[in-house]
Amino acid sequence: MEIKVVKDILGANEQIAQRNQQLLDSNNVFAVNLMSSPGAGKTSLILQTINRLKGKTRLGVVEGDISSSLDAEQIAKEGVPVVQINTGGECHLDANMTSSALGDLRLKDIDLLLIENVGNLVCPAEFALGEHRKVLISSIPEGDDKPFKYPLMFHKADAVLINKIDLLPYLKFDTDAFSQAIKGINQKVEIFPISCTTGQGIEQWVSWLLSQIEKGQT
Amino acid sequence: MEIKVVKDILGANEQIAQRNQQLLDSNNVFAVNLMSSPGAGKTSLILQTINRLKGKTRLGVVEGDISSSLDAEQIAKEGVPVVQINTGGECHLDANMTSSALGDLRLKDIDLLLIENVGNLVCPAEFALGEHRKVLISSIPEGDDKPFKYPLMFHKADAVLINKIDLLPYLKFDTDAFSQAIKGINQKVEIFPISCTTGQGIEQWVSWLLSQIEKGQT
Repeated sequence: MEIKVVKDILGANEQIAQRNQQLLDSNNVFAVNLMSSPGAGKTSLILQTINRLKGKTRLGVVEGDISSSLDAEQIAKEGVPVVQINTGGECHLDANMTSSALGDLRLKDIDLLLIENVGNLVCPAEFALGEHRKVLISSIPEGDDKPFKYPLMFHKADAVLINKIDLLPYLKFDTDAFSQAIKGINQKVEIFPISCTTGQGIEQWVSWLLSQIEKGQT
Repeated sequence: MEIKVVKDILGANEQIAQRNQQLLDSNNVFAVNLMSSPGAGKTSLILQTINRLKGKTRLGVVEGDISSSLDAEQIAKEGVPVVQINTGGECHLDANMTSSALGDLRLKDIDLLLIENVGNLVCPAEFALGEHRKVLISSIPEGDDKPFKYPLMFHKADAVLINKIDLLPYLKFDTDAFSQAIKGINQKVEIFPISCTTGQGIEQWVSWLLSQIEKGQT
């Protein structure tokens, strides 16, 4: 009985996600679903990405949080269109919330839409939003065992960013073992070590992102 | 309709949690539900706590993970009875899973049961397990804005441990502002800055824990 309810919810979500993607495609908007643990650096990555792409690509941002609009306020300061979704307790965004946020944006003015999901390594992996790519930010202080503990999230990601590499000297973290563990779960994934504090690796991340947009909405 | 389903699930969980607590009480077991983001240091804290209490208090551990038994294996090496719960995708422990784990332990041989929840700052806050205290581990690299973003978890905690304070020199983190934000949500909470790497603050945490056990199961 419970399983049936869950299946129904995921099935309904999938349909709305497909409708979202059609809407995005018809407006030539490329959408990325950014997921991570709390505090791994989603907002910092968005700010770095805005910084590199300003004047080159027209950006838009959807901010997902359980409550507060702290991140959206930071983004708005950069002059980028941003919509806040407060999930009101829900631990992940879903396609319906995303659909509502899309209605608050002028999609014709946006080339790249970054959707910041709720900080959570579990449930966001199960709910498609209509995005073209799923990007996971994992950070050094979380430890190198995370792919074994949250395999679905690592399995579903198109790219994994290893953030906070500036902290490597102060922590035990085996980057090679971590990357191998990810590849064991997901052979086609792209992995980028980065630091949103020093800017290291951001160039490679942005290049990949632009190459994905060029490839188009596939 | 959806809300009704959720209420039913939480109501049923509450009943089983109360049964768990009765079982624990009748065996004089004091239970602590440890919650945090992925990688904030739950297992490290358990290891530090075992280290300090070995020979003084008879410990038991329940390890909650979506998959893998890495943490349970680490605990077992310390010679402490440990039961692994794999939630199989679920993003939190619930009272039913806990009930099953309690059946796998000799409760008469345990004074203090540490239950490590799934790494997640959202859903674990909503599901009572039958524990006597809820303890939240928040870590410096996650940032000092977390109480605003995950208020329910901070509201429900009896104690908040601020872990990884050895990283303070390398990160922007305002400990006073963080503590004030927590107190704004939860006036009665105890806050302990700690480092599971250097051992700083562990003495204070363990003293508080022992005082809670002495107070008894209230």
